[in-house]
Amino acid sequence: MAYELYYWDGLQGRGEFVRLALEDAGAEYVDVAYGPNGSSAMMKIINSKTEPHIPFAPPFLKDGDLIVPHVANILLYLGPKLKLAPKDEGLRYVAHGLQLTIADFVAEVHDTHHPLATDLYYEDQQDAAKIRTQNFLDQREPKFIGYFERVLKQNPHGDKQIIGDAVTYVDLSLFQIVDGLHYAFPRAMKTFGKHYPRVAALHDAVLKRPNIAAYVDSERRLAFNESGIFRHYPELDQDAK
Amino acid sequence: MAYELYYWDGLQGRGEFVRLALEDAGAEYVDVAYGPNGSSAMMKIINSKTEPHIPFAPPFLKDGDLIVPHVANILLYLGPKLKLAPKDEGLRYVAHGLQLTIADFVAEVHDTHHPLATDLYYEDQQDAAKIRTQNFLDQREPKFIGYFERVLKQNPHGDKQIIGDAVTYVDLSLFQIVDGLHYAFPRAMKTFGKHYPRVAALHDAVLKRPNIAAYVDSERRLAFNESGIFRHYPELDQDAK
Repeated sequence: MAYELYYWDGLQGRGEFVRLALEDAGAEYVDVAYGPNGSSAMMKIINSKTEPHIPFAPPFLKDGDLIVPHVANILLYLGPKLKLAPKDEGLRYVAHGLQLTIADFVAEVHDTHHPLATDLYYEDQQDAAKIRTQNFLDQREPKFIGYFERVLKQNPHGDKQIIGDAVTYVDLSLFQIVDGLHYAFPRAMKTFGKHYPRVAALHDAVLKRPNIAAYVDSERRLAFNESGIFRHYPELDQDAK
Repeated sequence: MAYELYYWDGLQGRGEFVRLALEDAGAEYVDVAYGPNGSSAMMKIINSKTEPHIPFAPPFLKDGDLIVPHVANILLYLGPKLKLAPKDEGLRYVAHGLQLTIADFVAEVHDTHHPLATDLYYEDQQDAAKIRTQNFLDQREPKFIGYFERVLKQNPHGDKQIIGDAVTYVDLSLFQIVDGLHYAFPRAMKTFGKHYPRVAALHDAVLKRPNIAAYVDSERRLAFNESGIFRHYPELDQDAK
C-alpha cells in the first residue's frame, strides 16, 4: 500500500523534507492534500474524537494503520525502508540527531518572520522580525551551517555526505535548507559557497541526483512562496559578509 | 558502563527530561557537569576537531562510544533499555512523536522570555517578551496542553498514561512541563486542573512514583531558576482564565 503524506496544500513547508526522501527513493506515495478530499482528510484525522494516536500538527505519514507525526520522526521511520538511512543501528541515532538539529534550524527560520506569534500576520510583527532576522543572519545561521560544514569535514568517510559512506535522508534535508536560504535571503547568501564550501557542494550534488532533478523539474515541486517556512521579504535580507 | 549525561551545570533545562527517565528507572548514570571536569568535558566533545559525531548542543548522552544528541532522541534510545517505552515497535514512533511535540512546546516556552534573540539578555527584549508570553498563555499553551488532554482522554487503555497501558518516558516529560509551568506562571496556572484534569492528575501521579519522589527530594534535583527554560518573571505572568 502506498504511503500517505498529510500536509497543507499550496506550500513546500515542512512536508517538503518528507517529499524529497520519497521522491529520491522513487517510493509510491499519495500527497493527500492534492487528492479528492484535499486538506479536509487531514483535518478529519487531527480533529478525530476517537483516534488514539492523533497528531498535534502536520506533516504526518500514514502507513496502513500507523500514524507517524513530525518530519524527523517520519524520516527515522522511512529511512531504512527507502534505503536512505545508515545501515549501522548506532549511526541511525546520529543521523536522527542531525535531522533534529535541522528541525531546530527550520523553526528558527520560521521565527525570523514570526518572532512574536504564529497567529499574527507578518506585517503586524515586522519590526521584531527585522531584529530577529538580523540576529539570525549574523549569529544563528553561521552557527548552524558552520556546524554542518564541520560535520562534513570530520566525516571519516569523506565530505560528500554528512554521515557514513552513502547519501541519507539528512543530505536531502540539507539540500532543502540551503535551497530555502537562497530563496529567502539572496543577498546574504551571495558568499555562502565561500564560507561553507562543503555544504554548498552537497546542495549541488543532491540537485544532480536523477530522481531529485526530475522531481524539482516536475509540477509536484511547488515554488517557494510566502506561505512557507522560507519566505522572501526583501526588507529582512541584508548584505553578505 | 554507566551512561554519561552531558549538560550545562546549574540549571534543570532540557537535561532534566533525561534525568527524570534515568532516575525513575534507577539507572546508573554520571551527570558529567557535576564530576571532576565539569562543563569542560562537555565543551571538549562539542569543540572536537576529530570526533565524527559532534553534537550541535547539549544535552547529549554518551553510551560507550556512541554519542546521542537531542532530548527526544536520547529518550528514544534509552526508552526500551529503561523499560519506559511501549513494547510495540509502531507505538514507539507514536511515543516519539509525542515527545517531539513536547520538544516544540519547550522551545516555545523558552521563546516567551527570548523572542528576539537567544544571545540577548531578557531585559533587552522584555517588551517583545510580554507580547509573546501573552500570546503563549492565551493561544499556544491551551493548544498544546489541550492536545495532551485529548490524547489522554482518547487512550483506549485509560487516561492514567499518555500512551499504551503503562507509564513511559513521555509521562515523565509531561510531569516536567506541568511542574515548570507552575513555577513560571503561578497566576495563570491557578485554574489549570479545572481545564486539564487528566494532565494535572498525571503530573500528581508521576510525582508519587517512588523513584521520582526520592529524586525530587534529593540534592540532585536543582530548583527551577532564571537560567533554565521555565523562568519566573512576575511581569510576564497573568491572571488565570
